[in-house]
Amino acid sequence: MSNIWGNNFKISIFGESHSTAMGVVIDGIPAGTKLDFDKINFELQRRSPGKNNLSTPRNESDAFEILSGYFNNYTTGTPFSAIIKNTDVRSADYDNIKYRVRPSHADYSGSVKYNGFNDYRGGGHFSGRITALLVFAGAVAKQILENKGINIKAHIRSIKDINDVSYLNTSSDEIDSFFPVINNEIKAVMIKTITDASANGDSVGGSVECKIDGVNAGLGDPFFDSVESRLSQLLFSIPGVKGVEFGLGAEISRGFGSQMNDEFYNDNGTVKTKTNNAGGINGGITNGMPIIFTAYMRPTPSISKEQNTVDLNSKNNTKLVISGRHDPCIVLRAVPVIEACAALCMADFILGE
Amino acid sequence: MSNIWGNNFKISIFGESHSTAMGVVIDGIPAGTKLDFDKINFELQRRSPGKNNLSTPRNESDAFEILSGYFNNYTTGTPFSAIIKNTDVRSADYDNIKYRVRPSHADYSGSVKYNGFNDYRGGGHFSGRITALLVFAGAVAKQILENKGINIKAHIRSIKDINDVSYLNTSSDEIDSFFPVINNEIKAVMIKTITDASANGDSVGGSVECKIDGVNAGLGDPFFDSVESRLSQLLFSIPGVKGVEFGLGAEISRGFGSQMNDEFYNDNGTVKTKTNNAGGINGGITNGMPIIFTAYMRPTPSISKEQNTVDLNSKNNTKLVISGRHDPCIVLRAVPVIEACAALCMADFILGE
Amino acid sequence: MSNIWGNNFKISIFGESHSTAMGVVIDGIPAGTKLDFDKINFELQRRSPGKNNLSTPRNESDAFEILSGYFNNYTTGTPFSAIIKNTDVRSADYDNIKYRVRPSHADYSGSVKYNGFNDYRGGGHFSGRITALLVFAGAVAKQILENKGINIKAHIRSIKDINDVSYLNTSSDEIDSFFPVINNEIKAVMIKTITDASANGDSVGGSVECKIDGVNAGLGDPFFDSVESRLSQLLFSIPGVKGVEFGLGAEISRGFGSQMNDEFYNDNGTVKTKTNNAGGINGGITNGMPIIFTAYMRPTPSISKEQNTVDLNSKNNTKLVISGRHDPCIVLRAVPVIEACAALCMADFILGE
Amino acid sequence: MSNIWGNNFKISIFGESHSTAMGVVIDGIPAGTKLDFDKINFELQRRSPGKNNLSTPRNESDAFEILSGYFNNYTTGTPFSAIIKNTDVRSADYDNIKYRVRPSHADYSGSVKYNGFNDYRGGGHFSGRITALLVFAGAVAKQILENKGINIKAHIRSIKDINDVSYLNTSSDEIDSFFPVINNEIKAVMIKTITDASANGDSVGGSVECKIDGVNAGLGDPFFDSVESRLSQLLFSIPGVKGVEFGLGAEISRGFGSQMNDEFYNDNGTVKTKTNNAGGINGGITNGMPIIFTAYMRPTPSISKEQNTVDLNSKNNTKLVISGRHDPCIVLRAVPVIEACAALCMADFILGE
Repeated sequence: MSNIWGNNFKISIFGESHSTAMGVVIDGIPAGTKLDFDKINFELQRRSPGKNNLSTPRNESDAFEILSGYFNNYTTGTPFSAIIKNTDVRSADYDNIKYRVRPSHADYSGSVKYNGFNDYRGGGHFSGRITALLVFAGAVAKQILENKGINIKAHIRSIKDINDVSYLNTSSDEIDSFFPVINNEIKAVMIKTITDASANGDSVGGSVECKIDGVNAGLGDPFFDSVESRLSQLLFSIPGVKGVEFGLGAEISRGFGSQMNDEFYNDNGTVKTKTNNAGGINGGITNGMPIIFTAYMRPTPSISKEQNTVDLNSKNNTKLVISGRHDPCIVLRAVPVIEACAALCMADFILGE
Repeated sequence: MSNIWGNNFKISIFGESHSTAMGVVIDGIPAGTKLDFDKINFELQRRSPGKNNLSTPRNESDAFEILSGYFNNYTTGTPFSAIIKNTDVRSADYDNIKYRVRPSHADYSGSVKYNGFNDYRGGGHFSGRITALLVFAGAVAKQILENKGINIKAHIRSIKDINDVSYLNTSSDEIDSFFPVINNEIKAVMIKTITDASANGDSVGGSVECKIDGVNAGLGDPFFDSVESRLSQLLFSIPGVKGVEFGLGAEISRGFGSQMNDEFYNDNGTVKTKTNNAGGINGGITNGMPIIFTAYMRPTPSISKEQNTVDLNSKNNTKLVISGRHDPCIVLRAVPVIEACAALCMADFILGE
Repeated sequence: MSNIWGNNFKISIFGESHSTAMGVVIDGIPAGTKLDFDKINFELQRRSPGKNNLSTPRNESDAFEILSGYFNNYTTGTPFSAIIKNTDVRSADYDNIKYRVRPSHADYSGSVKYNGFNDYRGGGHFSGRITALLVFAGAVAKQILENKGINIKAHIRSIKDINDVSYLNTSSDEIDSFFPVINNEIKAVMIKTITDASANGDSVGGSVECKIDGVNAGLGDPFFDSVESRLSQLLFSIPGVKGVEFGLGAEISRGFGSQMNDEFYNDNGTVKTKTNNAGGINGGITNGMPIIFTAYMRPTPSISKEQNTVDLNSKNNTKLVISGRHDPCIVLRAVPVIEACAALCMADFILGE
Repeated sequence: MSNIWGNNFKISIFGESHSTAMGVVIDGIPAGTKLDFDKINFELQRRSPGKNNLSTPRNESDAFEILSGYFNNYTTGTPFSAIIKNTDVRSADYDNIKYRVRPSHADYSGSVKYNGFNDYRGGGHFSGRITALLVFAGAVAKQILENKGINIKAHIRSIKDINDVSYLNTSSDEIDSFFPVINNEIKAVMIKTITDASANGDSVGGSVECKIDGVNAGLGDPFFDSVESRLSQLLFSIPGVKGVEFGLGAEISRGFGSQMNDEFYNDNGTVKTKTNNAGGINGGITNGMPIIFTAYMRPTPSISKEQNTVDLNSKNNTKLVISGRHDPCIVLRAVPVIEACAALCMADFILGE
């Protein structure tokens, strides 16, 4: 198990969906940092469910409690820790999945890994709920970064096959925090796609694109800690992410070098690139242009339709209908999680400068 | 800088394209492992240039010399190290790029990071040449894995917009080690695409798909060390990789949950999934199905066409024509590198079991 | 800051003496481990103050609360976490030390490190109280080790210049858990030494010797993770430890090789050494003999006598009298802490086998 | 195995006493550092044998070759690596110890750990010869530190029971680099003790005291990376070290708090302590006073006298006479190794500031 991440802004996370509490310890916040708890709470609210009829009606308040590392309104320099208690848990909902493993969840792989001792309720440690801890830590990281002029924003890049415009093609960023798209005309279509799937007992996937503005050139630690390496490690930790691209991503592989190279020019004393196909990263190191990346997420595996599976107890083939309360599309609530990962990664690099 | 990777099969790499030598130290090979050096050499040959007219005519022999950790034909359990000397280096080729940074190379970002002290010759530490060290270490890892029934194979999934069939749709794997495609009819088209680009002073990108067979369910260390997280960290360290997908990848985000979920069934006592859209990984943990992933690579940034850039010394805009010897498409030689990353990652997980 | 330790049995600690709570996250306990919470509580009681008139009358109940990683009476394999709430804190006691730094405490060095933002109340993160977290984690580690036949015991080796017999010279181990000495005749003298010092407003130091029985030969990861290296890292983390010795320690440096070498012999099929001057470790690796080491602790720096110091605010020389409630000798309560460090270190090695 | 150390100044070492070469990779030297190779060579000469009749007549030239990370007379910022080839090896000398394990060497424990595959020649990876790599890396670290006003010096604190004066009691430091003692009158007695032991086929131990001047207050990363923790981890990696003390060390445990506390005073605007019993470290963090520590080393385990041991092949008790060329006292040559450990540790802390 590895629930610790970071070199300079280290986080250690713990908790399961239905355990007494879940929490995060952050080691490395500079002493004397003043934190705005309202901002942290706002980020948690963006991720928490029950905000609209597009997400699960579970009411997770995600209220956090600071346990250490904060004294007289400033961080002390020693580990800053917080817990979020698990309330409104209906463990009984999960009794029928103890052995009848849910397709495309971690029920089976986790059961093998932990010899059947994993806490299967609500996905346990593999629940999307755990990402609230990333959001909490990311909200702290964001404040450190904002003090250094670094800003992070993400939007829904696609829902199923409906695409929003890319940050690579627009400088617009007036976006709603709870359903962030750049092209607002597409919003209704996306919503209808989600509600239709939901009405049909189904779910849909999508993608999130994120932009990091204000990062100087020279950040990143190749060979193995390239900016892409560190960011992708975090992004692929988020349950449901199955693809990560930087800049044009896969599209860049389909062009000629002469099209895809980002030529340099002098912009009033600053070296910039005319295009940003590489997403702000050359050779694993930032080049001063905005860092842009996209994470692709699978449709929520919890659907109401009947599915085939195996009963791990009897080893027999069987059928499963998942009841309980689930998001028809996790992409919406993933937006602040992906921003959080970007913030954690940047803070880790910046604090090591 | 971070040139060390791994928890159980740790590698430490060093060297620049034109330094005296480059090398790798492997810490964690079980004592008493017999290694087949011909196999290591074969993997290095797959990566080395000059094999055909599709790659740079540079003659890098990539002959390795073992320095430690091997005694009486077995590994000793202490660090196993090897160096590859750099020969046939033409440093003069790079004199004109000291200040005129090459677009989409690490020349500019690296120069900022290292205050101008980076070894710019041949890309220095950011040269694709460094991947020979991954191939060396990966060839060792492969032998450990083969003893445990784990096999790794990769093929060219695409060159520019020409696609080979995916491992997800075929069980065929009779592929050539030096230009590995599953659908041999597509080979000639791919080759023509590359040679045409080369003739035109241009380059093309593409993608590599890799399959890992024989991995048991239960491997992977979420939260942060999911199989996808660890693999992507390594893959994004390879110069030129801009996208990584597992299973159907981005495509999975465009479907319904009911289409994309991989239903379980009992196959003569073994739990399997009917489809493998998730690429063998659920919740960051292997589910016993083949692990399948794809890495997307940019076109070689070194092209013969004239490009715009900035002279870092004068800060003036200027033009650049890159001479020297370069691959019109790095995808071919990347295939063994990507297999090596897969092997390193799996060995690291397996040896921690 | 580094509040994370371990490769296989990883602990992450947080909290300050007067923060809301302190806690520990353990990552790496094998799934399906049943824990005896009474045993954990017993170890915490051994460390907690107020048990007799030899320790501070502060009443720290050290009641722990499990937050995650335990389900249906077994560990889940995911992070196991617990917190201990801080009660009976009298923060006002520390108002006069905010600027008047206490000699031989971390008040001054910590204030410089954290630019004055450190939580100075009760020593903050540098309080001996934090060692309760090591005891908690160590009590878990002990249970894992006991299942493998490994037992750990420590005793008071010395109080000031009064010495107990060494484990190197006796096989006796009938010792009291709360004032453990092998030679019970020496106990009264030790107690009088402590109470006399206390009556005089002073404090005394001493040492703790620890024995680990049942460890097989072959444990330890030189070069840098020799058994001595890992153990000493933990031991020197304990506030007040200023010396660590293995086997005969400094004494071994004063003899001839012919006296100090531990000759091997065959004891019914097992290779043993006739003497154990090296404390069970050769070349950083266990040799199958009991591991024996000693930690030397300074006298409690908090004494009632008036002391000279500097006022950090005015920079003036000044006088300080420390009020509050303090141990005249921390050695007694350090015994379970040192056992805990031994357990943590062994569990970390054993689980990596 | 763990042959990698450091967070900011990372070293990765490899090699065995009789392998083709041994080497070290340093990751983290700031780009643009100019190195004085004569100084590195001087440190290596201090450690190398054959300098006088007090050490083994083996002629290890310890000539190093730089492989990477140095370009146009400056470090590049990427891994700096060097190898030392093993010459003058007489492997035949070790044929008789393959199974007849030498008392107090790592032959037995290493054989168990590596299932008999360890390179037993000359102690293999456990040879004191490996410490040349620490000296090399330490000599680089020293140059970085000297540029910041930090100086490191060690002397022979004792040979057997003959003691030199302590840095705690003198400010004198005019010491010879090859037999460094502060009280030169004691030198002849020490030499006679060593030569007498040697003539008698025996060996003697001793201790080394080291002083680090010029370190600011505020360095050290408690809880687990206290200055004592990090330093002791390195020191106990050196073959033969069995005890480590900071400041007065064990002696501090034998006094009253009122004697041992180091009172603060204002020295022309700088906070200093009147005494330095704690060796410059409070609560694991530097307090601005010189860091002073002592390492105790066992007598060389290789002695000419006949010893009892076990033949691992037959499991029979047997006798052993070690031939070959060995130091009667390793303390002399350990002095630069201990300075190197101090430099590595300080550089690692300083570069993380």
